[in-house]
Formats: sequence, structure tokens, C-alpha cells
Amino acid sequence: MNKVKKFKVGLTQYSVTVNPDENLNKAEKLIEDAARKGANVICLPELFNSLYFCQSENIDFFDLAETIPGHSTEVLSNLAKKLKIVLIVPLFEKRNLGLYHNSLAAINTKGEITGIYRKMHIPDDPAFYEKFYFTPGDLGYKVFDTEFGKIGTLICWDQWYPEAARLTALKGAEVIFYPTAIGWHPYEKEEHGKAQFESWQTIQRSHAIANGVYVASVNRVGIEKQNPDSAGIEFWGRSFICDPQGVILTEASCDKEEVIVAEIDLDRIEYIRRNWPFLRDRRIDSYQNITKRFDD
Amino acid sequence: MNKVKKFKVGLTQYSVTVNPDENLNKAEKLIEDAARKGANVICLPELFNSLYFCQSENIDFFDLAETIPGHSTEVLSNLAKKLKIVLIVPLFEKRNLGLYHNSLAAINTKGEITGIYRKMHIPDDPAFYEKFYFTPGDLGYKVFDTEFGKIGTLICWDQWYPEAARLTALKGAEVIFYPTAIGWHPYEKEEHGKAQFESWQTIQRSHAIANGVYVASVNRVGIEKQNPDSAGIEFWGRSFICDPQGVILTEASCDKEEVIVAEIDLDRIEYIRRNWPFLRDRRIDSYQNITKRFDD
Repeated sequence: MNKVKKFKVGLTQYSVTVNPDENLNKAEKLIEDAARKGANVICLPELFNSLYFCQSENIDFFDLAETIPGHSTEVLSNLAKKLKIVLIVPLFEKRNLGLYHNSLAAINTKGEITGIYRKMHIPDDPAFYEKFYFTPGDLGYKVFDTEFGKIGTLICWDQWYPEAARLTALKGAEVIFYPTAIGWHPYEKEEHGKAQFESWQTIQRSHAIANGVYVASVNRVGIEKQNPDSAGIEFWGRSFICDPQGVILTEASCDKEEVIVAEIDLDRIEYIRRNWPFLRDRRIDSYQNITKRFDD
Repeated sequence: MNKVKKFKVGLTQYSVTVNPDENLNKAEKLIEDAARKGANVICLPELFNSLYFCQSENIDFFDLAETIPGHSTEVLSNLAKKLKIVLIVPLFEKRNLGLYHNSLAAINTKGEITGIYRKMHIPDDPAFYEKFYFTPGDLGYKVFDTEFGKIGTLICWDQWYPEAARLTALKGAEVIFYPTAIGWHPYEKEEHGKAQFESWQTIQRSHAIANGVYVASVNRVGIEKQNPDSAGIEFWGRSFICDPQGVILTEASCDKEEVIVAEIDLDRIEYIRRNWPFLRDRRIDSYQNITKRFDD
């Protein structure tokens, strides 16, 4: 379906409030901003219209989930159609009674939902209690063949798994989007913050390098506390887009609401892959033990 | 077999001449230097005792290959025994008449060869004509359980493959060594050199991060020209050791002969893996297509 050699991707980095409608409104404004800047494919951050509720385990927060299609995708489908853009909308999906996922919907330029990706790798760490809320994805790895290019999508914790990036690239992804909600525990930021941030950026750049794809990672900003006594999480922003060699093309701040846009050039992918032809030399005859938990 | 919680690894970065005996002598001196600095496990660069002959395809260069065991491993086994160190010796292996590999031998503190790894991923690019010389490895991924720790080994082009690092880590590696011979084409260094170097370092740091292992990468230095008219290759050095979070502990220059040493701390591996428990959450039920060439 590729019709163009070049297109632009946009990322919307922002902070949220307790009010989903406010967050949806903010997302719409930033999408319009990104479209004005020429973005053809725009991706919102993980759980785009809610606070990062996973800081505690509370069954009331399941009320934040919505169906796909549902209210948010309806509003944003209209916007995608109006702006003639492709939209990636990550949200808390209610799939059925008592069955929830950390998902995203892909919406095309006609405003149609063309598919869903459900986060495959689910973390569980202090203040990131995702295993309580999210059933692990059962749709595998996804590439959406859009009007502008082949769009791979993964979500946050997936970014630590080279297997996820590889499998997405093997399906033909030209760009892999990583909507994310990652931040520092304020009490450990000074000691570990720099290394944590650099790990996060390094591993995503490495997926670009290993696979010869563009990577576009979008994070939220702001300090979110579920109650005044909690330390909360300081989401570190730093949304970025890098090229198929891992070179950062554009990068946002750690604390401001921003839209960033960069161009995807399929000739650049071809050029990089011809010069360092990693896909040619994979030893697929030797990888079978990747499906083991541990090779002991 | 682990008997210690901490040990030191050393890397020897140097340039070579056309004379294998000179190169062996130099390697011995640098190994002694590394041992004096406390290194328990020492790794030489790829093809440790020869020029990077793969700049052209010439059957005479097969004369550089030697058996394992053979002259080099005999000399270095004696040195390992004398210094009570573990040695990783990468060399051009003659396995049989007309059958050659880019290999390494692991030698223990008693001077015994405890195993061989044969480079699995073989490149072929202008001036890196390795597919002409080296039969792809058939021993799979290796971890050597030494007196000091579990030592994983890969060679150069392997470093671009997350699968290789993962499979080595799944065998229990605590450190992955990457003996390497990588450099710039002088005519493209100015335009592409920085991005190429950064890709190389980034992807190896990412293997440390994804797998919670130390990574120790050792490269050669110097400009090697096979004839005065050729542009040659400028080997970029920058040997480095990074921790299981990808933090660089020590790094060599791009043009000097150097020995670098860093401490491996198994408690640090445990700590990093507990805090960001990537191995816990692998979706091994979803990785089977990694063994496909392309998922189309």
C-alpha cells in the first residue's frame, strides 16, 4: 500500500489531569498542532487520557477503561478524518467484563480503526503495578500498512525486549512507535536517574540500529502523585525520533509539553540496510532457543 | 563453578604488523600488563595475531590460519598457567584441509583449552570480505564456566544481533566479550564516522541492558593498508567495558595501544536484574517467528 517515499511522524508529549475529557481535549489540540507541522502519522503517549493509575492497585480504576471502538476512538477518528492523518491512540482497553488490556488503536485517514495492538510485556514494579490491571496482549506483534508507511507499534515495557522490535521489523515495519509512561521515583532520581534515562534511550536506539528502522518514542511529562503523601512519579518526557542508524533526529525536553516531528525517508532505510546489511546475515538456523525461559 | 562474587576482566587494544610472531609477542606483553593490573579474565582482539587480511580475497592468506590447539594456543596456555588467568584467544582457525573459521579459544588458569567459539554471523562488505575466508560457526552460542565467572563470547559482526547476545545470556553469561576488528573507511570517516562508532557502542551497551550482563568489547587500533595505493581501514579502538545497566566503566582511546580493566560484581548483576526484571517478563510464547528470515 506504500504510496510515498517520505512522510512525517509526530509525537505529542504532555501532562494529564484526573479528568479524562480534559486530557482528550489536550490531545486533540496537540494533534492539530502536529498536523500543522506536517505530521502525517501521529502517536499519543501510553494511556493517553488518564493519569498513570498503576501507582497503586485499586479496582475503582478499572472504571477508566473504555472499549475500542468507544468514546475516545470515536472523537479521534473524526479528527483523523478531518486532518487526513493516521493516528495511534494508546488507551486502557475494556475488552469484556473484567478483561482489560493496555492497548492502542490505529486509525487511518478515513477515520477507520484499522487494528489494535495489545501490550505484550507487562511490568510490575513498585508504583508500576501493571500486572494487576492489564492482561498480557494476545494479538502478537503488529504492523499497520497505512497510507503513509508501514507502522509498527509497541508499548512501553515492550521497549526492553529486542525480540519485540525484531518481530515487528520482520513484519515490515518502517517506523516503530513506542508510546510510553516512564519516569523517575523522586527518591532515587539523583543517584540512578541518569543511568535509567540513558538505558531507556540506548535500548530504543539499538532497536533502530539492529533492525534498520526509524524509532519514535513518546512519553508523558509531569509529576503524578496519587495522594499528597506519596512520592509519586516524575515522568521524564524526552520523547524522541531516531533514524535507522540510531541517530537522534529530534528530542523533546524532560518537563515541557511539546510536539516533535521528523521525516521518515524510505530511501534512507534502504541505504542504511544496504551499507550494514544485518538482515542478510541473521543465523535463523541458530535462534530456536530464544523461546526458552532460560537455557539451563 | 562460581567461587567468587567479584573478579576483574582485562582487554588488550593494540595494532599489529605483518609478522604473526611479533603480534604474539606484543599480545603476551599486554596480557602480562593486564594481569599486573589485576585482571583475572583477559580477552585479545579478533584475529589477534594477524593483520585484518579480509580487505581482499586472496587464497594465500589462508596460510595465516592455525589449528586449535596449535602454536598460538600453546604459547598462551603456558602464559595463562603462569599468570593464573583465564584467556580468550580469538584467531583464524584451520579446522581441516580447506575449512576455516573465525574462532576463539578459551583457556583456563591451568592452561587447558576449555572450549572453542566459532563466529556465527559472518559479514561481507567492501574491504571486509569475511564470507570468502570464514565458514559460519557451527557450535552455537557458548558460555565458559571459568574459575572466575561465566564467560560468554561472541565475535565482532555478532554484536549487531540481539539474538546472539540473548542466547548467550540465557546460557548464564555474566560477562559477554566481543573481540572485534572494526574501523572506518578513511574516505567516509568524516561524513559517517561518528554515527558508525556510536551505533557500534550503542548496540553493545543495549545487549548489557537487555540481558543484565556486563559487556567487554575489545578492538584493534591502527591504519592497515594491504598496499600503498589502497585507502585501507582505520581501526577505531575505543575498547570498553560496561555494566549490566549499560553504563560505561572504562573506555580506551581511538588510536593508542592500551590495556583496560574493570571489575565484574555478581551482586551488581543481581541488583540490576531485581530492579528492572526484564528476564522475568519475556513473552516466550510469542517469539517463535524469530527463526524466520522475514515474516511476510
